[in-house]
Amino acid sequence: MIIIGEKINAGSKRVKKAVELQDVVFIQELARKQCEAGVSFIDVNAGVSSQNEIRDMEWLINTIQEEVDTPFSIDSQNPKTLEVALKANRNGKPIINSITSEKERYSVILPLVLKYNAAVIALCMDDSGMPETVEERINIAAGLIENLTKEGIALEDIYLDPLIRPVGIGEQYGAIELDSIRGLKAQFPQVRIACGISNISFGIPARNLMNQAFIVAAMVSGIDAPILDPLDKKLMSLLHATEALIGKDKYCMNYQMKFREGLLEI
Amino acid sequence: MIIIGEKINAGSKRVKKAVELQDVVFIQELARKQCEAGVSFIDVNAGVSSQNEIRDMEWLINTIQEEVDTPFSIDSQNPKTLEVALKANRNGKPIINSITSEKERYSVILPLVLKYNAAVIALCMDDSGMPETVEERINIAAGLIENLTKEGIALEDIYLDPLIRPVGIGEQYGAIELDSIRGLKAQFPQVRIACGISNISFGIPARNLMNQAFIVAAMVSGIDAPILDPLDKKLMSLLHATEALIGKDKYCMNYQMKFREGLLEI
Repeated sequence: MIIIGEKINAGSKRVKKAVELQDVVFIQELARKQCEAGVSFIDVNAGVSSQNEIRDMEWLINTIQEEVDTPFSIDSQNPKTLEVALKANRNGKPIINSITSEKERYSVILPLVLKYNAAVIALCMDDSGMPETVEERINIAAGLIENLTKEGIALEDIYLDPLIRPVGIGEQYGAIELDSIRGLKAQFPQVRIACGISNISFGIPARNLMNQAFIVAAMVSGIDAPILDPLDKKLMSLLHATEALIGKDKYCMNYQMKFREGLLEI
Repeated sequence: MIIIGEKINAGSKRVKKAVELQDVVFIQELARKQCEAGVSFIDVNAGVSSQNEIRDMEWLINTIQEEVDTPFSIDSQNPKTLEVALKANRNGKPIINSITSEKERYSVILPLVLKYNAAVIALCMDDSGMPETVEERINIAAGLIENLTKEGIALEDIYLDPLIRPVGIGEQYGAIELDSIRGLKAQFPQVRIACGISNISFGIPARNLMNQAFIVAAMVSGIDAPILDPLDKKLMSLLHATEALIGKDKYCMNYQMKFREGLLEI
């Protein structure tokens, strides 16, 4: 799995406070711990509603890359914030999080992807809003892939996000999400499928448990790049078990090693 | 889910001892607890290697049905043991566990299914041994379904078991198993798909964790009737979460109720 660690998000109170206090030690430790847990990318979100998003994003990128070399997933809706982060970045090829098929958003994000030779998370969404069905998602994805590859972006640098709706607002959304992942992977095998695991559980109790079930379900359905909390030991333990289940862990060697190292929560 | 509770199996030391001592209280409590955990069937296995399998099976059936009304899954390779249990049974329509496509086994089990109007677990296996591929399983299943329905057995009374090989002996087996479940369900939507969840984890450490991942994976792939330990709270919690994920729990109402009752292990 290409794990994208979600912990450095100023949407969380603790991170927001650390950003306000410019608490270098806290942020660097949170980055290091995620790397030790095996993430391939560190997602950085400086706070959607922050007045100082641009300044805070630059500070976060610089603070983190003083400590670790892991590439970033740069997470903002503001192209200016993205560009400041892309300029500051020294940690290898980043992912821009995210582009969509919405005309305006597409036109401002695409130049950044090209200029900085970045990978990009592409949300299956266009100007008509959030898609309802599997087919709508696949159609939007097909358009995004056609347009992005026409610009020279490699299939492997496109991370399709089918956009999860919480299972608490409609019992059909879990199955739609899993069918979307399966459908996108079947149609576009070279493209990566990403998604935020915890989105599934908004608004219901026992969110962690639902997220645990969803990581297994999403992996079985074909996800490549889950965005998740890599410090949730049970979630990661189920991820490692599922890698063995889906044939991505030869002789269960990684699973057994993790067990011997005491890293599995049984 | 049609949950088949696996606890009353004289393969386990504690149950074997209880059978030897004719410990009515222990057996009845184990049956009642499984019913409280929500099983649809109580599997009863009196010990493959026991000299007294027939006598012990009859004692188990009578002891359990004094306490609970839940139907049995009668688990033996010996047709005589099966018949004694079928005769003693007063708990509604049982499942015979199991028939196969092996000529000899088929010919001795089929008459019992018909005589006692039972449902039956049909293992995807014939005289050439354990199948390797998904296609072999589907071919054997097609033959079993054709023959059983020709005898008047309803599709809903056939529980196909694709036969799990442990993921520890070959990293391909998890994916083959999940593809088999998906393939069988697609091909034979009215037939039930059953399988023993813990078979996946023979021979590796942290078996419970692997079983937890597998129950989610098997449900996402289309299983109807897992054979499992219903007293494993974490396993059952993931099962309830997955029911919501695959659209089988309207408004997540059962999930939320289980949470309020303190029955979910988060």
